[in-house]
Amino acid sequence: MAVYTDITDEELATLLADFDIGAPLSLKGVAEGVENSNFLLETETGRFILTIYEKRVRADDLPFFLDLLTWLAARGFPGAAPVADRQGRTLKVVRGKPAAIVTFLPGLSVRRPNAAHCREAGAGLAWLHLAAEGFALTRENTLGHAAWRPFFTPLEAAAEALKPGLAATIRADLDALDAAWPSGLPEGVIHADFFPDNVFFRGEAFAGAIDFYFACNDLLAYDIAVALNAWCFEADGSFNVTSARALVAGYESRRPLSAAERAALPILARGAAMRFFLTRLADWGPVPEGALVRPKSPLEYERKLAVHRESADLLLFGPAA
Amino acid sequence: MAVYTDITDEELATLLADFDIGAPLSLKGVAEGVENSNFLLETETGRFILTIYEKRVRADDLPFFLDLLTWLAARGFPGAAPVADRQGRTLKVVRGKPAAIVTFLPGLSVRRPNAAHCREAGAGLAWLHLAAEGFALTRENTLGHAAWRPFFTPLEAAAEALKPGLAATIRADLDALDAAWPSGLPEGVIHADFFPDNVFFRGEAFAGAIDFYFACNDLLAYDIAVALNAWCFEADGSFNVTSARALVAGYESRRPLSAAERAALPILARGAAMRFFLTRLADWGPVPEGALVRPKSPLEYERKLAVHRESADLLLFGPAA
Repeated sequence: MAVYTDITDEELATLLADFDIGAPLSLKGVAEGVENSNFLLETETGRFILTIYEKRVRADDLPFFLDLLTWLAARGFPGAAPVADRQGRTLKVVRGKPAAIVTFLPGLSVRRPNAAHCREAGAGLAWLHLAAEGFALTRENTLGHAAWRPFFTPLEAAAEALKPGLAATIRADLDALDAAWPSGLPEGVIHADFFPDNVFFRGEAFAGAIDFYFACNDLLAYDIAVALNAWCFEADGSFNVTSARALVAGYESRRPLSAAERAALPILARGAAMRFFLTRLADWGPVPEGALVRPKSPLEYERKLAVHRESADLLLFGPAA
Repeated sequence: MAVYTDITDEELATLLADFDIGAPLSLKGVAEGVENSNFLLETETGRFILTIYEKRVRADDLPFFLDLLTWLAARGFPGAAPVADRQGRTLKVVRGKPAAIVTFLPGLSVRRPNAAHCREAGAGLAWLHLAAEGFALTRENTLGHAAWRPFFTPLEAAAEALKPGLAATIRADLDALDAAWPSGLPEGVIHADFFPDNVFFRGEAFAGAIDFYFACNDLLAYDIAVALNAWCFEADGSFNVTSARALVAGYESRRPLSAAERAALPILARGAAMRFFLTRLADWGPVPEGALVRPKSPLEYERKLAVHRESADLLLFGPAA
């Protein structure tokens, strides 16, 4: 949620001269997305999002992200489709930074999802997984299970500072995750950040997903686990099993889970809680001067991790009726 | 340029239930405006800007601003028109803060205006002055000539810290402004912040003005003076007389100036430079934690003030051919 890069009218005109989308009518910086600069661009032919990629997104990964969005759009998944310039290129440069123009995806995200939203979100996630089948490029999940222990080592002191005794608890969690982490489950392209603010609704219906800048190859059921943590906890920290059942049932309405995938959901959800706890712990600290983004507290995911640690059977449920 | 207030889908639904503009399709926080929270809102019937007024705008002033925008829109001036709810109210409340929905005004602002842009801007400013004639409400210019000396007194140390000797220079400027400030010139509603980022173009043509939250009653020619400072200085600090002539000529294409108004432009421009120097000096200092807005350096307007101090005949020119 930030606008870092400013664009002059000359820079915009230079960029648009490469495209066949008409002259610009308006340009507004929007507070959306990970940590890129996003602009809502209106031209004579329609509305688009212009993204300037800031340093947090690795330039080497951009072809994967943009080609994936193009692939998904071509298969009818409602997302933002990259617009190619006259030479067929979607990856452009503005003010020395990588940039892309994608189509505007209308929709509203929900702040407090109910079970019906969770069902729609689950169905949307399965749609995404199915639409991504056959996509040729791959990207390792750099924040996946294998990365957590080395990621945590330099953060042990920060964990202790957050809560005395937490470092040892996390180390034990990492041991437990290593011991129980599943193998042999179906893999594919996952969104990896399927949070409510990245999912759009029109009325009560799923209208699409945005912000694919963590997308990678990993266990498909791990993506469900990320979503269960993001969608099914109440503000008071309690886990809403009705919402969780709805999310999984929605998912299975499009892509039924194997028994092994369903059995793995508890450990996958514990791992997904670890992943977001770790990155929030790493981002925590004094806000640097000039920063436009406030880091999220790691405590939210520390609590979710505790819920999964203490109730391993929380997600052991069959498909909803 | 900031989004301070967040809006949940429930709060948006509650607000829109009072209006006849259809269901919401998308909502995006936009980095635009003074220091309010602005959202680009798309509904089934069109596009709007939803503004939540943060503390810097006095709630008592909002009826003046909103009624002025309504008045201007009714007279055909291209601006953002407040949308009334079913009870005819334009001033609403969201999350305990004043809020309003206005129509979306397309257009692009220019970062480096050329003389042609200045001519269009001048004509647009005169259009605004003429369209505002007859508007019944009034609002004192709380940042006008009478306010500068009391505004400066507590800032003398800050001025000295910025540049040794500056406090005495500013005091002498205030004396000179008092001695030469004009009286008897035509008054009316002025925009008072007619900067390039508040003026929209479509191609090369004036497309409207936004951000009326400094609008007030004052000398009409003072509004031109504010614009001359904002539009006609080059990045290197030099004053572009060609652009200035174009701006005044554009203005006079719609509202010819009296000889007294034209003769007053140099002192009005010096005063307008003082006004922006003072507020930027007051806003200068360490960035508070969590602030989303970086204050602008007061040095830009200190230099503009110096230009007007040293070249009192800079703006003594007749109308352009």
